[in-house]
Amino acid sequence: MKQVKPETAIVRKHPSWIFQVVTAKKNGRPNAMPASWCTFCSAEPIMMAVSVALDRHTHELLEETDDFVLAFPNKEQKEDVFYCGRNSGENVDKFEKTNLETTPAAEINTPLIEDSVACFECKKSGSIESGDHTIFIGELSATHVSEKYTEKIYTTKGWHEKGAEGFKTLAEITGGGQ
Amino acid sequence: MKQVKPETAIVRKHPSWIFQVVTAKKNGRPNAMPASWCTFCSAEPIMMAVSVALDRHTHELLEETDDFVLAFPNKEQKEDVFYCGRNSGENVDKFEKTNLETTPAAEINTPLIEDSVACFECKKSGSIESGDHTIFIGELSATHVSEKYTEKIYTTKGWHEKGAEGFKTLAEITGGGQ
Repeated sequence: MKQVKPETAIVRKHPSWIFQVVTAKKNGRPNAMPASWCTFCSAEPIMMAVSVALDRHTHELLEETDDFVLAFPNKEQKEDVFYCGRNSGENVDKFEKTNLETTPAAEINTPLIEDSVACFECKKSGSIESGDHTIFIGELSATHVSEKYTEKIYTTKGWHEKGAEGFKTLAEITGGGQ
Repeated sequence: MKQVKPETAIVRKHPSWIFQVVTAKKNGRPNAMPASWCTFCSAEPIMMAVSVALDRHTHELLEETDDFVLAFPNKEQKEDVFYCGRNSGENVDKFEKTNLETTPAAEINTPLIEDSVACFECKKSGSIESGDHTIFIGELSATHVSEKYTEKIYTTKGWHEKGAEGFKTLAEITGGGQ
């Protein structure tokens, strides 16, 4: 083993899935922010944890809300996901400015994103601050899949600099024909 | 979108990386447990979060320790990783029973695993219970990579039933030639 700078080791953890954190104020417009830091964190009940930077508008929304959705975009949604990452829901209605469409969730107020490879409805159950992020924990209330799309998108490194082209399917990353 | 059972949606979140949670009692033998639930959770300082079931021996060790290592195994280590998942460090010395070898970390007591694709040294900084797991948070103290291996292993679903064959590289999963 060779000691290296964190960025060199972190590249080896990639590719990392991209998903959208969907939030909605009660009687307010929904919002979506792309992220890549989430994990399951309980098997029974099934729970998920998502890590969101303290300075994000989505962080403020997550603090206020009772629920959120983690929506894994399909490969046709790359450009729209990139738009969501480059703009703040504080200033724009992302669902008005993109082709992304919401559709009602089964058990919670926050909507799903239509054509997501998978959507996980979460009822917020806790949170903990960690460095410059907060980990928000939610209990799964319902799950949904697209009947049309199955391939998720991933980032191999720094999608912020690469634009939508930084998002790739696993098959594109490995040169395979998944 | 179509509402489905959680297991159907969870399959769509796969493949998921496999890593070993390495722990060590002070003056005691090190232990390793394969897991797939972790995420980064801070950029500055860099922090990682790992979710471990309450009933695991590693959970007990993580509660006692000041530090831990997340080690991403290479594809030649599949069988040994599977052994580590099937046996408890309470009863066996996993580093004696497998070909896995430890090597000293740079900044912490817990050792690295030799030939890991990447190792992340973490100083424990917090934890939160979530359902039947606890999320342990650690601040990165040093990072290491193998000079020989670059391909991680992933699980596509339920490796517990599939044995070591349940662990695959991304290229094996997509049919690509990464």
